[in-house]
Amino acid sequence: MPELRQDPVTLKWVTIAVERAKRPHTFTQAPKVVVKATGECPFCYGHEGETPPEVMAYRDPGTGPNTAGWSVRVVPNLYPAFGPASGDLNPRHVGPYTVMNGLGAHEVLISSPEHYKDLALLPQDQVTLILKSYIDRYLVHRNNPVLKYVLIIVNHGKEAGASREHPHAQLFGIPIVPHTVVEEIEGLQRYKTEKGTCAYCDVLAYEMKVGERIVYENDKFVVFAPYASKVPFETWLMPKSHGAHFEAMSDQEVRACGDALRTGLAKLHYGLNDPPFNFYIHTAPYSGEGNGLYHWHIEILPKLSIWAGFELGSGIMINTALPESAAEFLRKVPLEEPSPAQATAVT
Amino acid sequence: MPELRQDPVTLKWVTIAVERAKRPHTFTQAPKVVVKATGECPFCYGHEGETPPEVMAYRDPGTGPNTAGWSVRVVPNLYPAFGPASGDLNPRHVGPYTVMNGLGAHEVLISSPEHYKDLALLPQDQVTLILKSYIDRYLVHRNNPVLKYVLIIVNHGKEAGASREHPHAQLFGIPIVPHTVVEEIEGLQRYKTEKGTCAYCDVLAYEMKVGERIVYENDKFVVFAPYASKVPFETWLMPKSHGAHFEAMSDQEVRACGDALRTGLAKLHYGLNDPPFNFYIHTAPYSGEGNGLYHWHIEILPKLSIWAGFELGSGIMINTALPESAAEFLRKVPLEEPSPAQATAVT
Repeated sequence: MPELRQDPVTLKWVTIAVERAKRPHTFTQAPKVVVKATGECPFCYGHEGETPPEVMAYRDPGTGPNTAGWSVRVVPNLYPAFGPASGDLNPRHVGPYTVMNGLGAHEVLISSPEHYKDLALLPQDQVTLILKSYIDRYLVHRNNPVLKYVLIIVNHGKEAGASREHPHAQLFGIPIVPHTVVEEIEGLQRYKTEKGTCAYCDVLAYEMKVGERIVYENDKFVVFAPYASKVPFETWLMPKSHGAHFEAMSDQEVRACGDALRTGLAKLHYGLNDPPFNFYIHTAPYSGEGNGLYHWHIEILPKLSIWAGFELGSGIMINTALPESAAEFLRKVPLEEPSPAQATAVT
Repeated sequence: MPELRQDPVTLKWVTIAVERAKRPHTFTQAPKVVVKATGECPFCYGHEGETPPEVMAYRDPGTGPNTAGWSVRVVPNLYPAFGPASGDLNPRHVGPYTVMNGLGAHEVLISSPEHYKDLALLPQDQVTLILKSYIDRYLVHRNNPVLKYVLIIVNHGKEAGASREHPHAQLFGIPIVPHTVVEEIEGLQRYKTEKGTCAYCDVLAYEMKVGERIVYENDKFVVFAPYASKVPFETWLMPKSHGAHFEAMSDQEVRACGDALRTGLAKLHYGLNDPPFNFYIHTAPYSGEGNGLYHWHIEILPKLSIWAGFELGSGIMINTALPESAAEFLRKVPLEEPSPAQATAVT
């Protein structure tokens, strides 16, 4: 019989459709035709002039802006969904509607010079550096009074909406707090009022006790399949110690976070043959709303299914993979360190 | 500059990303490779034994159940996402979580014997009959105390999640009211408390006054592009007269609804070369919640873009088509009556 499971924070339901459920290995992706597009990629070394001028880069000493020699490079998005980052929001009414100017920031954080290596395949030190770049850009934008929230996301694979193959994150600085984050804050508040504790802390404690949905853990972070997973192989990365702000991590925590993120993504990469996915960082708003209350985390959503009419109309996701089976499958995926041959597989 | 537009009922924002915006014709689909699969299609005449036994059919006199001779045929879904439709929901706690049995109904409403003709291409009388079949199934399920809501949806095209080519709708009878519907009811209540009127009635009055987002209207229904469209070429079909329940339509209204639905879909079909889409019927719950308050409608969402990390993480949709341009484009699409040659184009 299908099972309706409820997220303990948002109170949203998902259906685990066991009648339709598939064995984990059936989600494995077909081998891809790899496009050899490095010569035309504006995110590769030597093409720095093809992007808007960089706003930040970690660089080898002696290299100048907008030349090669960088390890992480941040540029404005050429076709911004929000911007510019200053001016008048000018909220106004149009008939029964409300509209305002889409002020904000939209940046591209190029993960490394490597065109073919995603976070899952990059060395640990580079992943640490990438997370540091996320934090650095957070800290820049949180001083901007126009921006109420910064959302950092990664799209990997064409099916997940990545328009460029070269691994990169995107930063969106926006003039409103997303309702998804507001819903989580309200849910955490409701739970705390009822039970006196943080719902996500309780979730972590329970998951670590029962173990069946754990994918990976180190001393500071847990990667697990949520009980009410919205999509097959959904995994969340959550700090063990309660904290509202991603950008407040210590250097030690950044390193441990990088280890957990890289490992979680590598398990997906090797286990399902490089599936498309999206991930986003949910952290508390600048405003202080959620301070103390919020418990930041990263949600990784592989794109292995289509949200169709039922999901769009009801908001109830039909998940055809049992989270416990997905987690067990991912736990068992051996982690191969990329050999030099694999690392430059495409020539 | 991008524009943030707010839905007046749910208060959710969308970004109309004008910097990224595309001209309407760029959404036109490439010609499709048509699969000639009628010989193997369980929804075609002569294959009635390949589905679970029918629970309802409109039939030629003298034809028996589960044989040819039907004009609309309803069968249980072979791989139900919800079911069975009776028993104990048994809501229970698992650690910090809540879970219950996924009781419910999941049916397939086969639109007509025609394998290649979607609602956009079927004769008006058949579309009226299809809507009558939706209502008939609604009325059957609303007597079931286990079900709190019935959602009828259509998925068209593989990219929109249709697993079968033969046009059909799906009915989901579920034991909870979807939070999307609850949000609309709460939004309508809030608006009514503030302004004393129905938000959707106000929207319709405003749209009919300004006209720029109208796609089609007849004496009883309006098809329009919502001001805060979530996706390119989103269109809503709404009755001009306030009413909570889709299934309470008079015969005259059913006919007018069929005309508007068929016309709206035909505009998409001919204008964008048969794009994939989902639509769903939002009607008030059985329970009486929303009675008086709710204003039922159909939301049609073409699948011309991908919801990626930003949309998933923020709930804010980035729409790259200006609703006014989409509506103008669709208004101008000439409606071709399918000729006999077109109607049987694939042989």
